[in-house]
Amino acid sequence: KMLRRVLLTALFMGALPSLAEVSQGHISVVLLGATGDLAKKYLWQGLFQLYMDQVSNGHSFTFHGAALTALEPGQRLMFDVLKKLACPPDESPNRCAVLKDQFLKLSQYHQLKTAENYTVLNREIETLLRQEGLKEAGRIFYFSVPPFAYTEIARHINSSCRPPPGAWLRVVLEKPFGHDLKSAQQLAAELTSFFREEEMYRVDHYLGKQAVAHILPFRDQNRQFLDPIWNRHHVERVEIVLKETVDAKGRTSFYEQYGVIRDVLQNHLTEALMFLAMELPANVSRAEEVLQCKLQAFQSLRGLEKNSAVLGQYQAYASQVQEELQKAQDYISTTPTFAGVLIHSDNLRWEGVPFLLTSGKALDERVGYVRVLFKNRAYCTQSETLRDAGQSQCKAKQIIFYIGHGALKTPAVLVSRNLFRPVMPEGSWREAVGQSDLHIFGQPLSDYYVYSPVKERDAYSVLISNIYHGRKDFFITTENLLASWGFWTPLLDSISHQPLRLYPGGVENQHLLDFEMVSGEVAFTLAEPVELLNPSGLMPNDYRTIQSKFRQSPLVSAWSEDLISQLASDIEKTASRTVAHSGQFHLALSGGSSPAVLFQRLARHHYAFPWKHTHIWLVDERCVPLSDTESNFFSLHNHLLQNVRVPYFNVHPMPVHLNQRLCVEEDRGTELYAKEIMALVANASFDLVLLGVGTDGHTASLFPRSENGLEGAQTVVLTESPIKPHQRMSLSLPLINKARQVFVLVLGKGKHDITTLLSRVGHEPRKWPISGVSPSSGQLVWYVDYEALLG
Amino acid sequence: KMLRRVLLTALFMGALPSLAEVSQGHISVVLLGATGDLAKKYLWQGLFQLYMDQVSNGHSFTFHGAALTALEPGQRLMFDVLKKLACPPDESPNRCAVLKDQFLKLSQYHQLKTAENYTVLNREIETLLRQEGLKEAGRIFYFSVPPFAYTEIARHINSSCRPPPGAWLRVVLEKPFGHDLKSAQQLAAELTSFFREEEMYRVDHYLGKQAVAHILPFRDQNRQFLDPIWNRHHVERVEIVLKETVDAKGRTSFYEQYGVIRDVLQNHLTEALMFLAMELPANVSRAEEVLQCKLQAFQSLRGLEKNSAVLGQYQAYASQVQEELQKAQDYISTTPTFAGVLIHSDNLRWEGVPFLLTSGKALDERVGYVRVLFKNRAYCTQSETLRDAGQSQCKAKQIIFYIGHGALKTPAVLVSRNLFRPVMPEGSWREAVGQSDLHIFGQPLSDYYVYSPVKERDAYSVLISNIYHGRKDFFITTENLLASWGFWTPLLDSISHQPLRLYPGGVENQHLLDFEMVSGEVAFTLAEPVELLNPSGLMPNDYRTIQSKFRQSPLVSAWSEDLISQLASDIEKTASRTVAHSGQFHLALSGGSSPAVLFQRLARHHYAFPWKHTHIWLVDERCVPLSDTESNFFSLHNHLLQNVRVPYFNVHPMPVHLNQRLCVEEDRGTELYAKEIMALVANASFDLVLLGVGTDGHTASLFPRSENGLEGAQTVVLTESPIKPHQRMSLSLPLINKARQVFVLVLGKGKHDITTLLSRVGHEPRKWPISGVSPSSGQLVWYVDYEALLG
Repeated sequence: KMLRRVLLTALFMGALPSLAEVSQGHISVVLLGATGDLAKKYLWQGLFQLYMDQVSNGHSFTFHGAALTALEPGQRLMFDVLKKLACPPDESPNRCAVLKDQFLKLSQYHQLKTAENYTVLNREIETLLRQEGLKEAGRIFYFSVPPFAYTEIARHINSSCRPPPGAWLRVVLEKPFGHDLKSAQQLAAELTSFFREEEMYRVDHYLGKQAVAHILPFRDQNRQFLDPIWNRHHVERVEIVLKETVDAKGRTSFYEQYGVIRDVLQNHLTEALMFLAMELPANVSRAEEVLQCKLQAFQSLRGLEKNSAVLGQYQAYASQVQEELQKAQDYISTTPTFAGVLIHSDNLRWEGVPFLLTSGKALDERVGYVRVLFKNRAYCTQSETLRDAGQSQCKAKQIIFYIGHGALKTPAVLVSRNLFRPVMPEGSWREAVGQSDLHIFGQPLSDYYVYSPVKERDAYSVLISNIYHGRKDFFITTENLLASWGFWTPLLDSISHQPLRLYPGGVENQHLLDFEMVSGEVAFTLAEPVELLNPSGLMPNDYRTIQSKFRQSPLVSAWSEDLISQLASDIEKTASRTVAHSGQFHLALSGGSSPAVLFQRLARHHYAFPWKHTHIWLVDERCVPLSDTESNFFSLHNHLLQNVRVPYFNVHPMPVHLNQRLCVEEDRGTELYAKEIMALVANASFDLVLLGVGTDGHTASLFPRSENGLEGAQTVVLTESPIKPHQRMSLSLPLINKARQVFVLVLGKGKHDITTLLSRVGHEPRKWPISGVSPSSGQLVWYVDYEALLG
Repeated sequence: KMLRRVLLTALFMGALPSLAEVSQGHISVVLLGATGDLAKKYLWQGLFQLYMDQVSNGHSFTFHGAALTALEPGQRLMFDVLKKLACPPDESPNRCAVLKDQFLKLSQYHQLKTAENYTVLNREIETLLRQEGLKEAGRIFYFSVPPFAYTEIARHINSSCRPPPGAWLRVVLEKPFGHDLKSAQQLAAELTSFFREEEMYRVDHYLGKQAVAHILPFRDQNRQFLDPIWNRHHVERVEIVLKETVDAKGRTSFYEQYGVIRDVLQNHLTEALMFLAMELPANVSRAEEVLQCKLQAFQSLRGLEKNSAVLGQYQAYASQVQEELQKAQDYISTTPTFAGVLIHSDNLRWEGVPFLLTSGKALDERVGYVRVLFKNRAYCTQSETLRDAGQSQCKAKQIIFYIGHGALKTPAVLVSRNLFRPVMPEGSWREAVGQSDLHIFGQPLSDYYVYSPVKERDAYSVLISNIYHGRKDFFITTENLLASWGFWTPLLDSISHQPLRLYPGGVENQHLLDFEMVSGEVAFTLAEPVELLNPSGLMPNDYRTIQSKFRQSPLVSAWSEDLISQLASDIEKTASRTVAHSGQFHLALSGGSSPAVLFQRLARHHYAFPWKHTHIWLVDERCVPLSDTESNFFSLHNHLLQNVRVPYFNVHPMPVHLNQRLCVEEDRGTELYAKEIMALVANASFDLVLLGVGTDGHTASLFPRSENGLEGAQTVVLTESPIKPHQRMSLSLPLINKARQVFVLVLGKGKHDITTLLSRVGHEPRKWPISGVSPSSGQLVWYVDYEALLG
């Protein structure tokens, strides 16, 4: 009855819907956690805004606040909030007052605790609709509750509160959605057992920020200008930043479990990153196309490692945690409150362009922005003083999606005047008139075209409107979520015991948190931190690489990561020296998993490696097609060749596949390879051969008691492996021993026994082929990690 | 007698040499062209400076001015100059007055016109020395004469004026040293027939500029700071600039033959470039080591092409030339008075770093500098307003060798304070105290460490002193000179008919001469010039792509650049559609120069191209090794494969090189390729085949009246080309006609006749193989540019 009364009032007010429009059906909105912080601060206001916007557009509404609190006190709490709902400045006070009155009448509190409660709620909705003679259009359940409650509520909704066929169900979920890939998968699996993908609306309220929401439309509407420059040839760097001045005080029970990466980077900043980096779908308003492009963009992100991030914690955090969580005095929190992360995308568009994601609490200012800085490719002939500031091609060129706060104090899109005058949707964005004294990113505001929203809208209003309109592209799908966690989880794992830089907070941070890129990694710019918080008490650089002897040859030993770094550097040094001396470098590589790590290291960290002059040979190969995942060459291709610029002619896979068959004697693949080596490698003496060792003492594909390859004149041989695939091709021991340098890499506990054995035995290649490696005029160096060496 | 008198006077003055020191010997300086402009302006003053500096250091001097003018008037002219010699500010006026008087007495005029004159000069020097009882130390002949006179004078000096054994001869030569590689070689050969390399001192007065002269010492003394950053990973760009406000008025008879590139870039700016780019020798003061490093640096410069430069001419130049050279009204000068050139070095240190060389007359300011701008690799967390300007890592980092004039008005070395505090030689450079209001390259002067010379010295003084000291590293050796001409000559040849942008001169130039880098080339930033001086009279634009029919198949036609863009887009569209449909895309490509442009376009503009799923096949190949520059695959590799990510397995070069020999029938390369196609390409039907057309109507490597490939069952064939290399491998016409799509690209005037012919003839593959292209169930599209179509 209340509903009918409201509808009638609405009709009399003229601006409100005709009955024909009302016939589009009724929508019930259920806000779970109706008396919580988020609801108080944003959600009720957002729902009220929805009501104001949509009341005349054909749907009727009821709003159901719900919580665990009993009816009476719950009701009181909720209506205290509702009474305080504000009228937006662009709404006429009269209309707003009337609508607010209606909104209150259409709102109702429910205790939702037991299964019974949900059944009752469902019945009430059904009864109401029947009484009013309304067709049901759909139901929105907004989960503004802690994540541990999700499953329980989801189960109840699924079993008791689904609308009848023909009406839709939309459940709105708030982060956190798990705290790593595994937990996110788990949560997703649970939710998926209750809801269909299209029923779930995972909120990232950043996607409701007007400047963020406009990134894709901007790229779409300005294709003509952006197409030629939106790539690695033109973009210098991208910064995606959310700086906060507040700290985590009062929220440490949440924050201590999450930290800045999970709280801000994994979701908000990553979504902004995706909007920038993804390929632009033909139709940016088709959620499915957007999602596919986004997922593709995730796939081309280069994996994060420990050194992809710098981390910090504001000094007061420790005591706040101790106090709020009642921890002991010696409790040390390893939760970062500041992070700067360097991200690279390895697709052709973005290769080499640094994407810097930064966020932190207790910083010197509150500001959020996404900044694309273009390369300066111009030379200005005229003297500086004569340059027209805004138009000069020698001024910085940038596009900034200014999310809010900061010096500008409003969301905005800024485009340097020397770039182009952007196309902006006229109804919703307007050119802002300048505060000309303001400087933004090193330039006076007058150097930019500045646009701000005609109507500034709160993110939650935007999102609630998008839920109402079923705009799924503004929400995080399960695939999207898991892709993001898949990307961030390795970093979160690798930094869990990394030292954090302590910072005082606010303006006192000064340069303390500035960081810079150094060979594809990031590091704080100030080398000497004021104080370092080191949870494990163990500093990995307290350990030095050990240099000594093994089987009368030099031994380099360290923990595996350091060992790989050392080996990679040594290989680069050898390569540079050799190229400087003879113009080329002949490198023969083994397959297996240890080299794969080495290959990645070489590809990522050794930019000065003379790849252009390096020839890549295989030490051994399995008799499978080269593009088979079992193939050594395939692994080499994936981990190294794909990522560096070795000319095609310099790559020499073993010819195991000839005449559509594998390693057939009469196809003379071994002879072919031997001839290729003879033709290109002076004296058939490789500059460097990289070997591994098997637990049985095999090396290359030379197995104990092999009939071929351990001696004799043949340089390339076919052999038999005890493990599948049995057939192999391999360089022979005599050929290996002609090399100028041989490095043997041995990693892991599993190799401890053979390592120990090898340290004792002599030259017995028939028993342990590796023991026959002894370059006749070259050098042999062993790289053995502590686990293999010490067990 | 005059000499003795001067020496005695000198002895009485105390500060002057003792006889024992004088015994180091006598130096005769002969200045040829003693009354010319250069002599008047710089050389006499430089010689006087030499005298002042060296009079007490052990040698005695006489100075011989010479010219073609008869004795009496010549003498008068010369002494008019000498009387005006200035005393340097750091010299006591008394000492200077006495020394000037002596200098005048030691100077003498000679007419040097005939062989006889030179013999007389030589006799006079000998007589003088004999009379004074002086040992001869050496003779300096300074050629301040036009280059056409060099050979004649050189011959006379060599035959009549060589000093006796034990004394040295130094001939000093002023540019121009030829005007291209050939003329420079010729001149060098002539001079070499008269003088030994060590006797020749080729002046580039820029090497006497204090800031230029300090580049190498600076790099040497600051190795510790520069070693890690003096490379492509850290350097953003390098600018080498000499801007002049004066124009060529009064000098057009010289200038019209040379232009700005020969006048300034080939010599001064190139030398500065070399000092920056060369590897640093262990000992920078050893001329031979410096020379070797310089020559190496020349070798790694990437060759210049037409689009490596932007050129201009100030508007008044034409009328100045007409007037001074008495040219007809319709005479058009194509001499550039402004040039901006983009240079790349392809060694590992500098790969990808742009070196911009710029110079021009009638510009808005007079200034010269060498500027190294470093990449900004830092992210500053604190807000802009809180950054400490000088120290912030987010401020630009640069090192500037400021040659002179401009805002600073003095030679200087500037290093950004956030880089490092440079080591500077204390005696000769001192830290300058700031004019803090000055901005240099976008930053206040206070952001730099600024050093200026303790004693500012004119370039000629420095050079004359270096000649005296035999410091050959400050002069241009023959090898150095020819390397430079070898580098510049191709550009000079290619631009001889290029349009020049006209500019008004001075501050009115505004942005007219600003230029920018676009895919490795340079172009003026303002697309629409106010006026263009275009000798050829042809402007290629305003034309749209035409779609129509050719030989019953669709025809796309446009100016070549637009046509290539269209073709590239069409190929990408086909590729994306095919991959979406069948998971892979089989593309067969032809060789030649037209495809090379297409390949570059694909690599640079089509980031969404599904390379990962594309298989690259060759339409035809020349029987040369794949890494031979003649090979089609080599060109494909250079222009495309190097720059995109086609997996190794998907690249299918033709097996022209088997068993260390080329295209031998019994190696069955054609069969091998045919099998590979059968194995991978469904139904042996390529998704897209790209063809070209020869002027004889050949396509692929199928030539008129070919025995193989025009019909029959063989899919891959060996053929004979009428032009070298004769042997070819090619797909057959029947195989090509199985393709789903065939694009034929025809570019350029040279193809007009065959295009016209083809529009008329029918299916006659034996006469014109291209006429046999007619896909049995696929589509054929012709891409013919306007030049080929319309002639």
